[in-house]
Amino acid sequence: MGVPGVVLLSGGIDSSTTLAIAKENGFEIYALTVDYHQRHRYEIRAAKRIAKALGVSRHLILKLDLSKIGGSALTDQIPVPKRHALGEVGKDIPSTYVPARNTILLALGLAWAEVVGATAIFIGANAVDYSGYPDCRPEFISAFEHLANCATKAGIEGKRFTIHAPLIHWTKGEIIQKAVALGVPLQWTHSCYDPLPKGVACGQCDSCLLRKKGFAEAHVPDPTKYAK
Amino acid sequence: MGVPGVVLLSGGIDSSTTLAIAKENGFEIYALTVDYHQRHRYEIRAAKRIAKALGVSRHLILKLDLSKIGGSALTDQIPVPKRHALGEVGKDIPSTYVPARNTILLALGLAWAEVVGATAIFIGANAVDYSGYPDCRPEFISAFEHLANCATKAGIEGKRFTIHAPLIHWTKGEIIQKAVALGVPLQWTHSCYDPLPKGVACGQCDSCLLRKKGFAEAHVPDPTKYAK
Repeated sequence: MGVPGVVLLSGGIDSSTTLAIAKENGFEIYALTVDYHQRHRYEIRAAKRIAKALGVSRHLILKLDLSKIGGSALTDQIPVPKRHALGEVGKDIPSTYVPARNTILLALGLAWAEVVGATAIFIGANAVDYSGYPDCRPEFISAFEHLANCATKAGIEGKRFTIHAPLIHWTKGEIIQKAVALGVPLQWTHSCYDPLPKGVACGQCDSCLLRKKGFAEAHVPDPTKYAK
Repeated sequence: MGVPGVVLLSGGIDSSTTLAIAKENGFEIYALTVDYHQRHRYEIRAAKRIAKALGVSRHLILKLDLSKIGGSALTDQIPVPKRHALGEVGKDIPSTYVPARNTILLALGLAWAEVVGATAIFIGANAVDYSGYPDCRPEFISAFEHLANCATKAGIEGKRFTIHAPLIHWTKGEIIQKAVALGVPLQWTHSCYDPLPKGVACGQCDSCLLRKKGFAEAHVPDPTKYAK
């Protein structure tokens, strides 16, 4: 077994590929998934299959009901925006932004990392083909890394936490090519924010549009069933 | 109603006094308590009474089972250290340290603040009469404030989040004097990490020792029932 590393795993393409990259780099994987009452909770099922398929030491699923805080199309009674074209994605921060979500997820990942003796925390944040979320940008990752090292016993005792965001500057096409190279079962990943029953992708939300773009760019057949 | 402010409220003396200070400063209070499966969950009952007594606009209680992460005497099968004298407190970071707890709590507070339109987040952190927890120090507060402003939509759109830790440089005695001056019902606050049934304080944990010290220093009768 390698050095332990905590990986935030949502069940989408980016976090699944990040997990595979962490494994490629020899880490023993502690995968963390949060059931935050997201509209697309179907992704948790995807996360379970991915964790099993790629092989992890532990897969921890925590429940945290962010619908009590709300304020997002993913956690509240707010419709998910549907797009006609990809050019509409990422111009403004859309209503699918979940306030402070990645701060919360990294905080939980940090807690677990400290307990299992890991200093590496992986997140599939991407600041190229994304919806403009503030907590996917390199500035955010750096700020969290700094925080981690003064917030924890391990940090002030001299261990250095590192937040790894290996995909942050990649296009969706590049991510998918890497996923294929590493044997990520992309057919089991889930991206859609607003799935129909049985997890069928809507085909029109930002996440579906970025997914379609990625497969097209990577020249990889898209295994996803889209409603539109 | 004043400007909204989120207050992290555990139900202890420090967070209750912080809430009273926020009110004194004209804030409309959004009190946040997290049931993280702490050994001293009795404090949540205290938080409810305090929120009601001091008057808040909302009191949100979120559940997040940190015992699944463990690694602390407050969330795991680890005994709470009992002391013979106050001089033993704060020399090392004790096992009651909960990994990344204040990062998690502030992250949740930040999420709620963004949703309710607050930029002020209050935490009762204290770096004088405390157990040496890293996430109670001014460096941590500053690092979180910086993070908050690059992690959120509100932050990057120009709102400035401020993490208020008004008690950070006070002694426990000073905190209790302020609490009395502001009418905080201290008899309803709960400090003990390892309470007996009905919330009776053990009298020997760090938190009990600091509480006793505070009342003594402030020359205020201590209303607490201690087992020892």
